[in-house]
Amino acid sequence: MEFFEKEEPVSPFIRVSASSLKRFVWKVFRALGVKEEDAGIVADVLVTADLMGISSHGVQRLGRYVAGIESGAINVNPEMRLVVDSYAVGVLDADNGLGHVAAYKAMVKAVEKARQFGIGIVLVKHSHHFGIAGYYALKAVESNMIGIVMTNTTPLVAYIGTVERYLGTNAIAFAAPRKQPPPLLFDGALSIAPVGRLELYSKIGREVPAGWVVGIDGEVLRGDARRVYEALTKGLAALLPLGGYSEELGGHKGSGLALVTDVICGILSGASWGYHVMYTTTKNANVGHALIAIDISKFMKLEEFCERLEQMINEIKALKKAPWVKNIWIPGERSWLTMQTRLRIGIPLHITVVEELRNIAKKASVKFDVEFLYL
Amino acid sequence: MEFFEKEEPVSPFIRVSASSLKRFVWKVFRALGVKEEDAGIVADVLVTADLMGISSHGVQRLGRYVAGIESGAINVNPEMRLVVDSYAVGVLDADNGLGHVAAYKAMVKAVEKARQFGIGIVLVKHSHHFGIAGYYALKAVESNMIGIVMTNTTPLVAYIGTVERYLGTNAIAFAAPRKQPPPLLFDGALSIAPVGRLELYSKIGREVPAGWVVGIDGEVLRGDARRVYEALTKGLAALLPLGGYSEELGGHKGSGLALVTDVICGILSGASWGYHVMYTTTKNANVGHALIAIDISKFMKLEEFCERLEQMINEIKALKKAPWVKNIWIPGERSWLTMQTRLRIGIPLHITVVEELRNIAKKASVKFDVEFLYL
Repeated sequence: MEFFEKEEPVSPFIRVSASSLKRFVWKVFRALGVKEEDAGIVADVLVTADLMGISSHGVQRLGRYVAGIESGAINVNPEMRLVVDSYAVGVLDADNGLGHVAAYKAMVKAVEKARQFGIGIVLVKHSHHFGIAGYYALKAVESNMIGIVMTNTTPLVAYIGTVERYLGTNAIAFAAPRKQPPPLLFDGALSIAPVGRLELYSKIGREVPAGWVVGIDGEVLRGDARRVYEALTKGLAALLPLGGYSEELGGHKGSGLALVTDVICGILSGASWGYHVMYTTTKNANVGHALIAIDISKFMKLEEFCERLEQMINEIKALKKAPWVKNIWIPGERSWLTMQTRLRIGIPLHITVVEELRNIAKKASVKFDVEFLYL
Repeated sequence: MEFFEKEEPVSPFIRVSASSLKRFVWKVFRALGVKEEDAGIVADVLVTADLMGISSHGVQRLGRYVAGIESGAINVNPEMRLVVDSYAVGVLDADNGLGHVAAYKAMVKAVEKARQFGIGIVLVKHSHHFGIAGYYALKAVESNMIGIVMTNTTPLVAYIGTVERYLGTNAIAFAAPRKQPPPLLFDGALSIAPVGRLELYSKIGREVPAGWVVGIDGEVLRGDARRVYEALTKGLAALLPLGGYSEELGGHKGSGLALVTDVICGILSGASWGYHVMYTTTKNANVGHALIAIDISKFMKLEEFCERLEQMINEIKALKKAPWVKNIWIPGERSWLTMQTRLRIGIPLHITVVEELRNIAKKASVKFDVEFLYL
């Protein structure tokens, strides 16, 4: 197999072994008082993001969760319980615990409900940022089900016709089993650009293209990523929703979908919504999620579903390619290839991230024993 | 109340009374052998689209359904039955009947399931184009539930990185009750522009902006709408998905969401998918839909949900407006205002549409007795 990485590692970086990174993250959370099983879940979610080439959501965010635990915003010893549990639906109160743990448990419950009722939907309230939505959608696939995951997030996106941060980058993930791995996996925020990309561009000095960000006075912000990212974090700018600033190119659709996601994850769950969703480091964020499982076998034989899906995928792969692309990619393929590659040659960590991890280790009195791979 | 119409009527037009138009459409379907109740459903869906200012999906499409019935593609006497009926999930085989009737019945069933299990999802196969998705989402709202509706459609949209028509303009609708009308109603196709708008532009000679359509050789098609629309119908061009032709502005998200919609509506239901979905006039289209109802009262008191939603809406209305807009609109407001206006002053029908209706009446031996309103 050829090596493939969906994101170019940013120099200077060093490759580390995934297993040692996961063990290290686990130890950090353990040292902070997180339960053994819970630490295992959050370590797996974070390192899986790095393996998949979604480094914005990987261990570079460890410091954020650590800060949340230290400030008391994240409860390390939550009593998560189903406050609604009625046939195919439920609401999990996460008691301000780690979002990763809450979403994991809610999806386990949704799968259980789907096994009985054909579909299960478990909403989560009083949660925190949960990392990559796709992780939990893939959990349903392990039970041969379709997984659908939604979340709201801290406000960063302008509602159509406005210029302030109100909506989150609210993500939707969808996963379904295929005959062979990788599973189908769609996972996207409903802003044009994820905020993590701006953060990254501001670190590595890349230019922000026109169309991602609108300033508070309605001007398009582009160019110098440090300046644009700073404006965004200070509330002087907002990310644009999928479709952009005008209805002509569908901005009302992107912001409408983000709104709908918030109605389910925020309003209906009993969590916060819009600009009431807090940042994980300092306060109980009261993020809301939706975890949905659909039992394929209630509709048709799993084999038949997979045959049909495979035919669709083969048809797409055989379509006429646009002159500007080399490959036609099905959702989930690139992150899976990246994972296979990084399991073999390691996860590339930017040296500033390595330094961050070293500092976290020191503060938590944990040995920094991540294994560097010299190729 | 001030008059408001979300779409400018296209001259030359004449206003007609909604009730007389609905009665006329009903009589046409009755004359073609459609059952009384079914004719009532499809007439209401079509005229509601015109009332809402979505004329692309209104009676201007009557000829298409008539042609489908005459060719035998649409079965006027279908035996629609639930071939899957298991707790919260079901599949309705529409037996090639009118999509409007199938979707209506499937949503009634989904609401019934939601009342018992908290959520109900009924997929539909062997169906036809069903008009506006939002109509069925609003059905759930009548029972104080959230309604979610998806459908696939005939292939018109290019998957990201390709230039051929493969995906449908696959729509997603979401409706939720509010304290006062109008309900929240999001209803959007997952292409940037709906095909109906191109059809309209080609009739009235408006220019197609850059970004809506890609030619088979990868060039951007814009300008003369007649030429662009012709290229599209001949398979020499394709609509671009929400987010456009490149990943930089999120084209992979729009085409990913359209793909996911097709996996649920087409693959999982047992209907056709991608370019196998046929056009309603000549063949059994085998369109697939998904009708979902969520019983709000299982999660929280309806009053509480509506209070929370109203607070969110008030917050959005108070955000800083972009310099280029006059109003901040919540999904569903403009179509509702248009409906109130058109119930009073009539539905504007372009004279070519009036002529089409006249011809349909003549062929079906139905009196053309639509009431013209002269203001």
